[in-house]
Amino acid sequence: MEQYQSLSKEQLLGLCEDLKAQYEGYKAQNLKLDMSRGKPSPEQLDLTMGMLDILHKGSGMVSGGVDTRNYGMMDGLPEAKKIFADILEVEPGMIIIGGTSSLNMMYDTVVRALLLGVYGGKEPWIRQGKLKFLCPVPGYDRHFAITEQLGIEMVGIPMDENGPDMDLVEQYVNSDPSVKGIWCVPKYSNPGGIVYSDAVVRRFAALRPAADDFRIFWDNAYVVHDLYPERAPKLYNIFEACKEYGSEDMVFEFCSTSKVSFSGGGICAMAASERNIELIKKQMSVQVICFDKVNQLQHVRFFKDKDGVLQHMKRHAAVIRPKFELVLGTLREELGGLGIASWTDPAGGYFISVDTLPGCAKRTVQLCKEAGVVLTGAGAAFPYGKDPQDQNIRLAPTYPELRELEVAARLFTLCLKLAAAERLLAD
Amino acid sequence: MEQYQSLSKEQLLGLCEDLKAQYEGYKAQNLKLDMSRGKPSPEQLDLTMGMLDILHKGSGMVSGGVDTRNYGMMDGLPEAKKIFADILEVEPGMIIIGGTSSLNMMYDTVVRALLLGVYGGKEPWIRQGKLKFLCPVPGYDRHFAITEQLGIEMVGIPMDENGPDMDLVEQYVNSDPSVKGIWCVPKYSNPGGIVYSDAVVRRFAALRPAADDFRIFWDNAYVVHDLYPERAPKLYNIFEACKEYGSEDMVFEFCSTSKVSFSGGGICAMAASERNIELIKKQMSVQVICFDKVNQLQHVRFFKDKDGVLQHMKRHAAVIRPKFELVLGTLREELGGLGIASWTDPAGGYFISVDTLPGCAKRTVQLCKEAGVVLTGAGAAFPYGKDPQDQNIRLAPTYPELRELEVAARLFTLCLKLAAAERLLAD
Repeated sequence: MEQYQSLSKEQLLGLCEDLKAQYEGYKAQNLKLDMSRGKPSPEQLDLTMGMLDILHKGSGMVSGGVDTRNYGMMDGLPEAKKIFADILEVEPGMIIIGGTSSLNMMYDTVVRALLLGVYGGKEPWIRQGKLKFLCPVPGYDRHFAITEQLGIEMVGIPMDENGPDMDLVEQYVNSDPSVKGIWCVPKYSNPGGIVYSDAVVRRFAALRPAADDFRIFWDNAYVVHDLYPERAPKLYNIFEACKEYGSEDMVFEFCSTSKVSFSGGGICAMAASERNIELIKKQMSVQVICFDKVNQLQHVRFFKDKDGVLQHMKRHAAVIRPKFELVLGTLREELGGLGIASWTDPAGGYFISVDTLPGCAKRTVQLCKEAGVVLTGAGAAFPYGKDPQDQNIRLAPTYPELRELEVAARLFTLCLKLAAAERLLAD
Repeated sequence: MEQYQSLSKEQLLGLCEDLKAQYEGYKAQNLKLDMSRGKPSPEQLDLTMGMLDILHKGSGMVSGGVDTRNYGMMDGLPEAKKIFADILEVEPGMIIIGGTSSLNMMYDTVVRALLLGVYGGKEPWIRQGKLKFLCPVPGYDRHFAITEQLGIEMVGIPMDENGPDMDLVEQYVNSDPSVKGIWCVPKYSNPGGIVYSDAVVRRFAALRPAADDFRIFWDNAYVVHDLYPERAPKLYNIFEACKEYGSEDMVFEFCSTSKVSFSGGGICAMAASERNIELIKKQMSVQVICFDKVNQLQHVRFFKDKDGVLQHMKRHAAVIRPKFELVLGTLREELGGLGIASWTDPAGGYFISVDTLPGCAKRTVQLCKEAGVVLTGAGAAFPYGKDPQDQNIRLAPTYPELRELEVAARLFTLCLKLAAAERLLAD
């Protein structure tokens, strides 16, 4: 098929009519599908059911010298720290284990910086007037919601296939002391699926922030979430990079088992320099006595070590790889060569990011919704929910069954085509 | 034995020598005992081991229409809400279930009020200059640590056997708009073991705060923690009392299963008016996607309902009642009639509160420590750790075994006597 842009008005009108007829056919099916959030499917969650057999009435509950059932050990079981440390390639002393949600840990980390300050800072962020965070875009809507709620101004930073525009990042961070942080998903970025290049990671480590209390929020959510584990790209270890520049205190790294074990019952962790960890533990000791150590124990005994986690993730990959391939195949088949969309082909993570013609994202999402397929709201991947070009849409293919996904993906391409044809007619 | 105050200097000197000789005998035993924190004993934790058999590989994991293993249902499983609602005698719609720590939930609630504001308030607390919390004393050190860390000035409020001095509470709350909150442990107060009287609860409900964003932090930590369940005192339901005054929005109530199931793996809850809950849920949705629903499910299926919890608490009572009775018996036997100490005789909770002669608490705790028995630091039950009279000591009898407890209690009374004799000699 020809590129839409080369069609005459008459051809576009005919195309629209044809697409609308197809669209009505979908509407008549009364679909109710959801591709809005990066949720594991029941089949993936089933992979972890064995963890529920790990602890039982007769289990020994002592770990690292403490009774996991009782209070104490705020920063987590040594064995749990070891697994996360191995995964993140840091020392166990650089790890704090939290509750079920790494988002919660990130939120709390921003709140602590606001109210109490960070290591090396002269005073809490909140006493310093206007505050800014850099937000590589498209990015994770829940990151942006945190900074928005807490009154921190967000500055969008464009991304390319290597990561954020580091010229711009350096310009802001190294000159503006009101820039206190940057949100990063460095491996399989949400939603772009980009793995930051070694050069980008090194440039992060080499930052010379104007603020003495600037922090990189390195949300390594997809650290072990490779779709093709045998040929997975390797993210350069930022703490390793920082060693060269003595900048280890600049990084807060986060991850969790939300998409490894149970999203509704996993454990999370943060990694930071020992100086950061020491202060954070002191601050945190007022907030909480301990997180769920019984759940930590259960995870430790189920996964055993980093290799146990990696083997488990291969089973996840086997479940979700066909889903990604189905959606990508549908996009190619339906949209290839039409000049109205581009999309990412991620090697891991939970999303496919689609760019429509400018001004077509909202309309596409709306059309899908009216036909019963919920997508992430258009603009969600941008600070304040505002996509300046109205062209980015995030697809989350993991949750639906293959059969449903095929329908949803087909409908999505139809809606995108219809929105594009309408837009070209209106221009 | 005579009252210490009626002894001559010579008699006191002889007594001191005798007590010191006994004390050296204890020191020679190289004891290592801990009565510092309100921790359940391993025997109590064993009572909940059956919960670990509740979920297994083949378990149905859907509850309230959602897969507990996946994301979602931020405010908790409906069945978990029902159990907490029944225990707190409120509607399930007034409940939010949290993670393992109610302390964390209280901390977060104060932080939200500071940064985002509460329902009905004009602006976040933090924009309103100086802030104060009332702190009934003796009280819970971890409450005071929160307000201290967050820069909120604490005002001590004396307690009697009916609860806080309500004349003083009314005077502060109803006239000073910088008073934003009060910390309360209304049933079996920590450490005094006091159950607030109906009249006190009603006076709380009848407060007319000068601040439109004042909140009562009603930490009902020991709501089901009766030592004598058959004749347990009943705390008047504050939300019921508030109905009469239309003041339901003024109360944030908290509780947890930390001393019901596992301290290191329980679940917690807060209760508030539906208007409060609606705003809190909106605010919280930025912080967290969901807490551990798998653990909630496990709790729900193990305890089944409020009655299941109450039956379980009878088994706890059977374990810890002898410990309280042992310590109280030792106090009576060793200190009765000496005029150097008074103590509480709680019907529940986790503590016995001892008052020494003024100026003897620190010395008593120090003597115990040097002989190998760790008590809660003297002064811990007061804001900023400062007991103006240096006379309050909190005993936590639940954790040690009976045999150890007997030694620890005996040593404690000895140290207290020695400190008192020294003090009287010095006067």
